[in-house]
Formats: sequence, structure tokens, C-alpha cells
Amino acid sequence: MPYVPSPLIPSATADHNFSTANLPYGVFSTSSNPTPRIGVALGDYVLDLTSCVDLLTQSVEGLTAEDVTSKDLNCLMGRESKVWKGLRRKVFELVTGESGLTMDNFVSLDSVTMHLPAKIGDYTDFYSSREHATNVGTMFRGIDNALQPNWLHLPVGYHGRASSVYLDGCDVVRPQGQLQKNKDDPKEGSVFGPSKLLDFELEMAFFVGGPANPPGTPITMAEAEDRIFGLVVMNDWSSRDVQKWEYVPLGPFCAKNWATSISPWVVSLEALEPFRAPTSAGSQKDPEPLEYIRDPTYSSYDIALEVTIQGENMSKPEVVSKSNFKNLYWNVKQQLVHHSVTGCNMSPGDLLGSGTISGTPQDSFGSMLELCWKGTREVPLGTSGEVRKFLKDGDTVSMSGVCKKEGVGCVGFGAVTNKIYPAGTKLKAGGANGVWKAA
Amino acid sequence: MPYVPSPLIPSATADHNFSTANLPYGVFSTSSNPTPRIGVALGDYVLDLTSCVDLLTQSVEGLTAEDVTSKDLNCLMGRESKVWKGLRRKVFELVTGESGLTMDNFVSLDSVTMHLPAKIGDYTDFYSSREHATNVGTMFRGIDNALQPNWLHLPVGYHGRASSVYLDGCDVVRPQGQLQKNKDDPKEGSVFGPSKLLDFELEMAFFVGGPANPPGTPITMAEAEDRIFGLVVMNDWSSRDVQKWEYVPLGPFCAKNWATSISPWVVSLEALEPFRAPTSAGSQKDPEPLEYIRDPTYSSYDIALEVTIQGENMSKPEVVSKSNFKNLYWNVKQQLVHHSVTGCNMSPGDLLGSGTISGTPQDSFGSMLELCWKGTREVPLGTSGEVRKFLKDGDTVSMSGVCKKEGVGCVGFGAVTNKIYPAGTKLKAGGANGVWKAA
Repeated sequence: MPYVPSPLIPSATADHNFSTANLPYGVFSTSSNPTPRIGVALGDYVLDLTSCVDLLTQSVEGLTAEDVTSKDLNCLMGRESKVWKGLRRKVFELVTGESGLTMDNFVSLDSVTMHLPAKIGDYTDFYSSREHATNVGTMFRGIDNALQPNWLHLPVGYHGRASSVYLDGCDVVRPQGQLQKNKDDPKEGSVFGPSKLLDFELEMAFFVGGPANPPGTPITMAEAEDRIFGLVVMNDWSSRDVQKWEYVPLGPFCAKNWATSISPWVVSLEALEPFRAPTSAGSQKDPEPLEYIRDPTYSSYDIALEVTIQGENMSKPEVVSKSNFKNLYWNVKQQLVHHSVTGCNMSPGDLLGSGTISGTPQDSFGSMLELCWKGTREVPLGTSGEVRKFLKDGDTVSMSGVCKKEGVGCVGFGAVTNKIYPAGTKLKAGGANGVWKAA
Repeated sequence: MPYVPSPLIPSATADHNFSTANLPYGVFSTSSNPTPRIGVALGDYVLDLTSCVDLLTQSVEGLTAEDVTSKDLNCLMGRESKVWKGLRRKVFELVTGESGLTMDNFVSLDSVTMHLPAKIGDYTDFYSSREHATNVGTMFRGIDNALQPNWLHLPVGYHGRASSVYLDGCDVVRPQGQLQKNKDDPKEGSVFGPSKLLDFELEMAFFVGGPANPPGTPITMAEAEDRIFGLVVMNDWSSRDVQKWEYVPLGPFCAKNWATSISPWVVSLEALEPFRAPTSAGSQKDPEPLEYIRDPTYSSYDIALEVTIQGENMSKPEVVSKSNFKNLYWNVKQQLVHHSVTGCNMSPGDLLGSGTISGTPQDSFGSMLELCWKGTREVPLGTSGEVRKFLKDGDTVSMSGVCKKEGVGCVGFGAVTNKIYPAGTKLKAGGANGVWKAA
């Protein structure tokens, strides 16, 4: 469904993040109605699905009122893919035709407070950019041993912390923890203190959809697309010094459990389909993956990604990285299938992160660790005169993603933007969405 | 509150798992009333808390009807510790005195179906037995480098998969996955197949209680006991060959995400208090932990643990390991505080596993990996004539825990028992509790 103008919402132009080619799902509330509810972003407006429940349930097979009127997307996500796909098609039809919808069915995007789109049951993070894994491996083990022997055979991943996945807009507090006392000799033990090597990781993540597979029954490649509800942009906040000391032998733990943040609108695979693109990460022929994760249509999506930093004394955000989702070596289907290969039950609302998305050029690296090459070079922040190695208190980090293509219309994700506060800052849950803010 | 006879329930003798010194919480249903509800085990009966809501809410400060009548323990767990402690004291008073309770408030333990005690938000697993970490380290890196440099400084842990934490009684299916083709040379890549090195891990786990700490605000040692609702016995099912190939550098993932199983009754720290004991794992003076995880009353609990295996052709279960919870080097308070040190928000219903609990003698090792010493020796199953290295299809593995002490009464956990089915077996959610069973 490429872009078509919407008679009701002229602001949904072809080059708007939320053109009619997008129609992402989100959960919002308004000051006049603080109940969180499901909406679809369109131009400068949000279509309130609770305002047209009957219209939708009457015409979308399998769709129930509960799917549309819940306070989060979990119920809808748990339906078979034909239900969420059918709902999106119906919304497209309604907003591009003579539909019976009026402006009463919409609220202004300016006026909404966004909420986490779903209750996240489990959160997993992968490590699927070859360039990122090679950069990190080169820094820590030298170029000859940069990629571990398993890396080209499976999408390396680890389980993360679901409770600390926060929404765009939340403030984050610099973590404290155990840091290796002597950076060159772990045998000297550790000291306590605020993390000095605070970092972002530019990622995307997808929400699992569809009824959960029973324990013991893996998801196949043929089934995978029907189990992917949609994608968001994600910042996997990381503390490099905490991680360095703690991560052997069981992986990152406290270095990553204090915050992960996501953009609020969930973009479907159908909206991304026109942007399907070969990956920039090779053909996967050398080696060819084992059959269970071999993808006959091996490809990814051309989603332009950008990271900006704005320090407290800067007048505007400055771009520090430009990457692309197609840089991933392992695609979303392969990630999901591998996750479940041992029989792991994947539930609607689970969130699976891509891992840091780095490309080949230096300015496409998706973390400060890579951009400053482990602290050996300064990263200029545009023309502000400021430089960074790792992140400072007061920095606001913003990540965004967008797909554009002639004749298709724009499919944008919007942004995930968060500000860093000093260690020890107390946060309070505020606003209609309970987002944590410095007091 | 040491053991006192219960006039109503004479079966709750001093040496019963569920003596009046215990009073564990669980969630149960009956065939006549399939709604899951909260109960307290006592002798051969279960006190149905929904049958005496008014009595309880009138006399326990801060306790609400919702805490007692919910379908899981999350609501009660989320109250301040004085509420759950007060409720347990009130139940003790009711069942040991002239209370106004009658047999109408109880159902027979024989007649109940148990349910998962809580919705588990996040599941974390530690690695806190020095003997276990030393055994594994010795096998894979040699005795001189057995413990990693960080191990004596912090409770090493990793995030696990919450969706696959199952209840006692569920069947488990042997996982399939990627296995290293040549065990001595990872560069040869991998093959697909059923795990050949299937293992249990003898663990205990605790449920987090109390209102969640805000992001950025760690839990202190002084607060820790008030954030621990109670403990269960846990089997952290593991696939050693999947783990060997996948775990570098981000830790165990598919090797552990297919099943973890727990016993159904949650035993409180108050019930365990009379069994507080020095750990068998040293004084923690060399090195002394950093201040934030230094425990002035460093100790654990004397909980005798046992693992049995019954093969399909065996007439009864045979003991393969006898260990003890006091073997842990890092205690539950230290685990919780370290988990949150970076500001991770810990929520009621989170489950934190201890890691495999091994002692010094060979017969106290808590996994087949250690018992068969990486496949180099056969483990006899009692007098059955059978031997094992790793687990076979058809094996039933059972773990139990119990505290006994003269003059205190017995505090038992009961057991977590599960049978292994061959790779590819289809499971169905069955019974009132939806436990997964081979079709």
C-alpha cells in the first residue's frame, strides 16, 4: 500500500513520517481523556481506534473489541498476523477513502502523551552487525581474532532486563557500580563509583506478535514474518567500564540493566516492505547458515538511522552517527527463529533488539565506544566546538529512523530522546504516562 | 515463631514439611472451584485465604482484599514487607489458637492443583556457589585459572528468560540447536541436532517483594531483607553443548531459555530465620566485599537439598546429589543489592536464582556436568544398576529442600519434579493450571 493522500488529514503528505504508507500503532492518552488507548499515527494526527471500534470489528475478520480498546497492544499483538494486517488494511481504506470517519475520530499529535506500546514480557538483545562485532572484537582482541568462531554461524544474543525498558522522554541516571581498579590488571580487584564510560547503542527492536508457540516447538523461517508485529528505534544504554569488569564469563549484566529506551510508534513489516533491501553485510554464503536459519529471501530493510547529541551548553543537537538497518548481517526473521530453536516460547509483547547497528564508514558507527575508538580519539559535536569520547551528564541523546523512496511515501519511526542526569539523581514517575523524570 | 501444634490440623506435626513453623504461600485451585487463589500450606491441608478475607484484612494493617483474593501473589508481594509479615503472623495466630477458623476454611492438599505463584516479570540467574564456579572453571580453564578475577568481588549473574519458568510437574522437551562440530576446534563450525549434554542445575530462587525501587535508586543492604518475599527450589535446565558453542562473548542464551522449573510453595525469610547458619563458603574476608555489598551479618540458611533421578525402567528415584543452601558464597541480600546497584528497578514477582549449589564433596555437586566431571566418569543411580553421564529421555528429575532443627519444627519446600521427553515431542497446556504435558 504505497502512499495515497488522505482527504481528511492533508498533513499526512508523502514525505511526512506518518504518511498513509506508514500507519504505525501506538498507545496514547490526552489531558481530556487520560485512559491509555490505541491509536494510529497519521500526519499531524492520531486516529483513536476506540472511537471507531464497531466499524473496525465489523469489517476485520477475527478482530475483537478487546484488541482495539485495551490499554496496550498486547492483546492485538497476540492475534494471528492476519488480524493485525487486516486492521492496518482497513485503517488505510478508511483514511484514504470516503470512509465515514470524521475529525472526531482524530486527536492532534501535539496533544497526546505517548505510553509504552506493550507490556514487555521478555527483552532480548542480539549482536547482529558484523561491523560492530568486528570493531569491538578488534579493540579488545586484535583484528585477527575480532569475530568469535560462532559469530558467522548464529545470531549471538543474550537475555536482557525487561523492567527497565523505558519510553522516549524518560530521563536516565548515570549508573554507579563496580569498576576494575587497574584497567590493565583485573587481579587488582575493583572500586565503587559512577560509570565513567557511559554509552549509547544505536539499535532497532521488534515486538513479537501472534499466539505464543508451545514450549518445545520452535518457530520456523516460514512462520517468522507472521510472528513479527513491528519495529521501533531503540537505545540500549550501556556502561562500558561496568561491563568490562563484570562480563566474564556470563555476559553483560549490570552494565545494561539500568535503562533501555524505545521510540513510541510501532511500524509494521508491511509498511517496511517497499523498503526491503539487500543487506550491506554480505550474502551469507560464506559460510551459509544451517538450514533452520537459512533465509531464501535473505534481505533487510533500508531504514536510515541517525544519532544526535546535545550537550547542556549547546544550542542544538549535532549528528554523531548515520547508519542504516540494512547493515545487519542477521535479519529479524533469523533472530526470532534462532531464539526459539531450543523450544523457547516466544510471547506477544516480547521485545528483541538488533544489537548496535554500525556500518563500514567511521561516521556510521553506532556507539561512542566505536566512534571514539575506545577513548583514543575525540568525536567533534558538529560545529559546537564541543567534543566527546563517552557521554557527559546533561547530554541529550536522540535516535531516529526513517524510510524514504520515490513513489512510495515516507515511513518514519520518529525518535527516542533521553537526557542523562548525574549519578544519584532521584527520578519521579510523572505525567499521564508515568515516565520517569528528574525531580 | 517456632512450631506449635495446630488444634484444627493435627497433621501439621513438627516434622511435616508444612508445620506451623513454615506457612508458605502458594496459588492453588480445586476441581470444585477452578479459580486460582492464594493459600497457605499447613500439614495435609491448604488454608484458602479467600475464605477468610474479612478476618485477615480487619486484623492485618495495610492488607487489602485484593492482596488476598488475587489469582497470583504479585499484588501481595508488592506491599511493604510489614504487610506480608503481618499476614503470616496472623495466619500463625489463627491456626495455632482458638481462632474462629473451621475445616471449611481448608481444602485437602491432595485435592489441589498448584499454579505458578506469581507472574514473573524478570528472571535473573546468579552463579554464587564458589565450589560450582571452581569446578566448572577447573574443567574448562584448569585449576590455576578456575575462578575469574571478578568472582570473589561480586555475585556474577546474567539475565534469563522469564517466559519459560515453569511449574513443578511440567514436562520438558530435549532441546535442539547448534552444536560445535568438532569439540576441540570451534573453527570447524557447527551442526544442527538434539542436545546430547542435557543437564539439571540444583538451585534455589527468591521472589522479589515490596514496592519497586525507582530507576536510578539502588537497594541498600539495610533494605534488602524487606525486598525478599520468599524462596523456592529451582531446576535451571541446561544444555551444555548448546552453551559451549554459543556463549562467547555474551553468555548463555539458547542453552538456558527453553526451561526453568520451580517448586510451588514460597517459603518466607521469617520461616527460615531459625535456620540461619554460617556459610560453608568462607568468611568473605579475603577479599572483603566493597561496602555496598558488605553484609554485617554475613550468613545463609541451612536448607538441605537433594536431587533424584528416576529412569523410565527404574522402580524408584535414586539420589544423585545432596547439597545445602548454605554452600553459597554470595547470599540473597548481596545478590539483590548488586543487581540493583546500577539503578535497576526490582519489581515484585521478579525471580532471582542462586546459581548451581555445589558443596565440597563430590556427592554434593549440583549438576551432572560436575557429577560426571565433563563426561569422564559414570554416575551410578543408586542400586538400580543404571548409570548416567548426562540426562536421558524419559528421566524424571526431582529436587527438594527442607530445614529441620530440634525444637523449631520442620520448614519444607516440597519438590520440583519434571520428566524429560525426546526432542520434537509436542506439548499441550493441560489441567486447571495449564501446565505443559506431553500429548
